[in-house]
Amino acid sequence: MRLVNFRGGAQAGFGVERDGFVYPLSAEGCATEAEFFTDVDRGLAAARAVLLNDGAQKLALADVELLAPVTRPGKILCIGLNYRDHAIESGMEIPKVPTVFLKLPHAVIGPGAEVVLPALSQQPDYEAELAAVIGKHARNVRAEDWEQYVLGYTVLNDVSARDVQLATSQWVLGKSFDTFCPLGPAIVTTDELRDPHALDIQLSIDGETLQHSNTRELIFKLPELIAYLSAIIPLEPGDIISTGTPAGVGLGRTPKRWLRPGEEMTVTIEGIGALKNRTVAARV
Amino acid sequence: MRLVNFRGGAQAGFGVERDGFVYPLSAEGCATEAEFFTDVDRGLAAARAVLLNDGAQKLALADVELLAPVTRPGKILCIGLNYRDHAIESGMEIPKVPTVFLKLPHAVIGPGAEVVLPALSQQPDYEAELAAVIGKHARNVRAEDWEQYVLGYTVLNDVSARDVQLATSQWVLGKSFDTFCPLGPAIVTTDELRDPHALDIQLSIDGETLQHSNTRELIFKLPELIAYLSAIIPLEPGDIISTGTPAGVGLGRTPKRWLRPGEEMTVTIEGIGALKNRTVAARV
Repeated sequence: MRLVNFRGGAQAGFGVERDGFVYPLSAEGCATEAEFFTDVDRGLAAARAVLLNDGAQKLALADVELLAPVTRPGKILCIGLNYRDHAIESGMEIPKVPTVFLKLPHAVIGPGAEVVLPALSQQPDYEAELAAVIGKHARNVRAEDWEQYVLGYTVLNDVSARDVQLATSQWVLGKSFDTFCPLGPAIVTTDELRDPHALDIQLSIDGETLQHSNTRELIFKLPELIAYLSAIIPLEPGDIISTGTPAGVGLGRTPKRWLRPGEEMTVTIEGIGALKNRTVAARV
Repeated sequence: MRLVNFRGGAQAGFGVERDGFVYPLSAEGCATEAEFFTDVDRGLAAARAVLLNDGAQKLALADVELLAPVTRPGKILCIGLNYRDHAIESGMEIPKVPTVFLKLPHAVIGPGAEVVLPALSQQPDYEAELAAVIGKHARNVRAEDWEQYVLGYTVLNDVSARDVQLATSQWVLGKSFDTFCPLGPAIVTTDELRDPHALDIQLSIDGETLQHSNTRELIFKLPELIAYLSAIIPLEPGDIISTGTPAGVGLGRTPKRWLRPGEEMTVTIEGIGALKNRTVAARV
């Protein structure tokens, strides 16, 4: 199933998308993202029930705006340097344990929303990433049990102000400017997307492909990531694990290539879809 | 004023502490931390009203348990290497801009609660820090306006698993094990603690002083920190800015000194008080 946050007409809420329509889950008592993530099993049952109901209310996808499928995740855990070619282009060593940093949740925006290039940065950059959305409280998960803690997958663009990110050893601020976390367009659940480790992933700007790889190139895959993270911290429903970006970011190019106002970034992942966001200059 | 979270008898909630008693704010319609931080001005008015009311309910401090004054902050922003002597003992350069990292909020514990030394780490360590608690939504704050965004100050022990923290370039996981963020015992409001940059700060273990400095030694002080942070991210009521630790941590000693089970850490800051937490081994 494809789970979405939508806004359209007089309605807004959480829903399931199929064949060009969005079916709100409100009829099944699960109107909002908050309700869905409070009881994910009930939410999934609501989504299945709506799709089986021939008389269920539906809205044409063309008539609604899709928001981020999780607008305010509890936490966004990002894995750095997790594609071999990107670690090399960044001049960093191939990691032996996952490099984990955070993006702050206020930075999340949805498909189609504008990425504001901050006046404080001269080096804004993009990063195409596959993100897993946690569906169940997780502590000390064995690697082989990883999948039962995942609700599904979505696309994340880990927008990064390289000058701010690399001004000190710690990356979080340069990764957390407002609008720096495009997310969406949908969460594709694990029953529909069975293998997240064999997906074509690419990023283009205004039609030019700048990143192109496959998630099979991930150094640390989700079983290992979920076991590692959950041994140290709790994972909660709605939390995001963004798995890292392949080679081709602006920082790794010769010459380096920074985002400019008015560019349209498109991140496409096989089986999930395309996440498009246009850049704009900050109003000063 | 001294603001506290307490639990005792049949009651629990947010209150104000004076002369050995805790006065619950529930009589003034501000029963919980969540209510207090939803409208801090109203919460402060409630605290003042309770202290002026001769008939107000009060509980002997000895009869209640104090919890962290903010049990679940939205975010905990920590400043690394912010005392010159600690930067040198860590073998790091004196920073030109603040080094900012996060501790995850689930790690917060209160005064007297046990710090669990994780089986995963062989190098648990302590860090005495002065923490500011944000009282008002802040964006793009001018340095000279910093104080109006601060509710008050408390004590934070930035417990750190050095081997996990330093296994990669990013520190957040090694800083975020369960129980790794002792906080309290009270928030001392800005009207009572006028100058946070002239406070004696020390940490002792079982009576032996291991850190001893003064917050005047901070490289980046709160006006600069709040201006810098709020230019990049929003600060919200209940958020914590922990200002960094002076020299004397276990990592910087010769020989290095790691926390062992059964030790009592006491962090004392002039004008705020003492935060005591005992270490225990993880149950395996």
